[in-house]
Amino acid sequence: MKTPLEILLERRSIRSFEARPVEADVIARLKEATLRAPTAGNMVLWSVIDVQDPERKKALSVLCDNQPFIAKAPLIWVFLADTQKWIDGFESGDSRGKSPDTPWRAPGWGDLHLCMQDAIIAAQTAVIAAESLGLASCYVGDIIENYEKVASLLSLPRYAAPAAMLVFGYPPEAALHRPLTPRPPQEALFMIDAYRHMDAHDLENAFSVHTEQLRERGVLPYGNTGSYADLYYIKKYSSGFMREMNRSAKAFFERWGDGMETSESQEG
Amino acid sequence: MKTPLEILLERRSIRSFEARPVEADVIARLKEATLRAPTAGNMVLWSVIDVQDPERKKALSVLCDNQPFIAKAPLIWVFLADTQKWIDGFESGDSRGKSPDTPWRAPGWGDLHLCMQDAIIAAQTAVIAAESLGLASCYVGDIIENYEKVASLLSLPRYAAPAAMLVFGYPPEAALHRPLTPRPPQEALFMIDAYRHMDAHDLENAFSVHTEQLRERGVLPYGNTGSYADLYYIKKYSSGFMREMNRSAKAFFERWGDGMETSESQEG
Repeated sequence: MKTPLEILLERRSIRSFEARPVEADVIARLKEATLRAPTAGNMVLWSVIDVQDPERKKALSVLCDNQPFIAKAPLIWVFLADTQKWIDGFESGDSRGKSPDTPWRAPGWGDLHLCMQDAIIAAQTAVIAAESLGLASCYVGDIIENYEKVASLLSLPRYAAPAAMLVFGYPPEAALHRPLTPRPPQEALFMIDAYRHMDAHDLENAFSVHTEQLRERGVLPYGNTGSYADLYYIKKYSSGFMREMNRSAKAFFERWGDGMETSESQEG
Repeated sequence: MKTPLEILLERRSIRSFEARPVEADVIARLKEATLRAPTAGNMVLWSVIDVQDPERKKALSVLCDNQPFIAKAPLIWVFLADTQKWIDGFESGDSRGKSPDTPWRAPGWGDLHLCMQDAIIAAQTAVIAAESLGLASCYVGDIIENYEKVASLLSLPRYAAPAAMLVFGYPPEAALHRPLTPRPPQEALFMIDAYRHMDAHDLENAFSVHTEQLRERGVLPYGNTGSYADLYYIKKYSSGFMREMNRSAKAFFERWGDGMETSESQEG
């Protein structure tokens, strides 16, 4: 059995799984470990939609930049930044309005940030729990596209928004032997006491192994003379899917945040 | 040695540490494991400020809701949602403007969301790596307060914003034997195919163990007759620190997001 550090050091994203389903008892243990994720003030500001319906899985795979592997995944979890349950509870339990010292406020941007932290912390706990149970996983960043349609598909209310999405399944043996993707050296990401800017040269050094691998494959832009940053700029940063992410995330952030009253108006 | 699942199931937040520092080789291993965190498109949209300067540690502990334990922590990492390095690299390496097919756009809300995912995924990887190395940790949600002053203290540029903060150190033996905090049952947090609203009764059931523990301690509101939701509403949701979180997070989200051009204006 792998040690906990080996689990972390050898983990890789896998998006194509064996066809067999994940057993109910394994899912129960995965949930149990995920539930131990740290959470702000033990408020558990997250929830998960386990997408099982084949039609919904297919629709979700289309909404997430048309990626068929999503619909084929044995297990799909959409992690929600969720304070809706508390708002519903405050309203129906009448916490709101019970005390003159605690005037009502709508959820705001800070609540959203805390909920996103809780949900993503839970998601990464699930990733590591899955590895520990012999499952593989992959994040699907494209869940933040098409917010309005995703919200409609999964009946998301205002204060329960997509924070992260994971697919899980048993990995094909061969996938476990592929080399790990490179990472920048520690010095490039860890700074002391203050933010340290990088220029193009620093960035190229930090991602030199990435660049070298791509140069060997002949896929860098400008006749294979460009940098990793050039490739990222053209293929990702300037892509249609990132334009859609920006539009969609703006809609989701503003739907949540615009209800907020400022501290001034609360106190006034 | 604990198994990977035991590490997850038995992990607790600890905020008071032994006075001894964390050794350099242990920190190097912690960084190594953190760097294996999954990241969107291998773009590594995060960075960490390791706050070492005693004056800055003290200032940070004041800005984070006046919590002296922060300044005493042997290791303080502020995880940043960071696309600044790419923006700097695009500009100084001239990726921007090299190709007529890829007109410039400023970072937007989708970039922010992806960067927050990357940074918080890295933070939770660090939490579990720390446990595996015998270290304890605690998230400090209050890092999202006083954004302007935190940004000034740590020289944060526009596109590198606080996503999460962790303190680490060696746990006092006694802290490892305290009972774990309760969690709701799996059914309360995992939904199938669509969001399922909870009313006050459902919420009270989900947090019944929490409520019972607090009732035994006699600390529930309304003469110990209130619910966990009532307590959360009064002590947290209506608190001054959450009001400050909402003000501060709005400033940080808008500083980042307002630079965004819409897809319409890019295409026009």
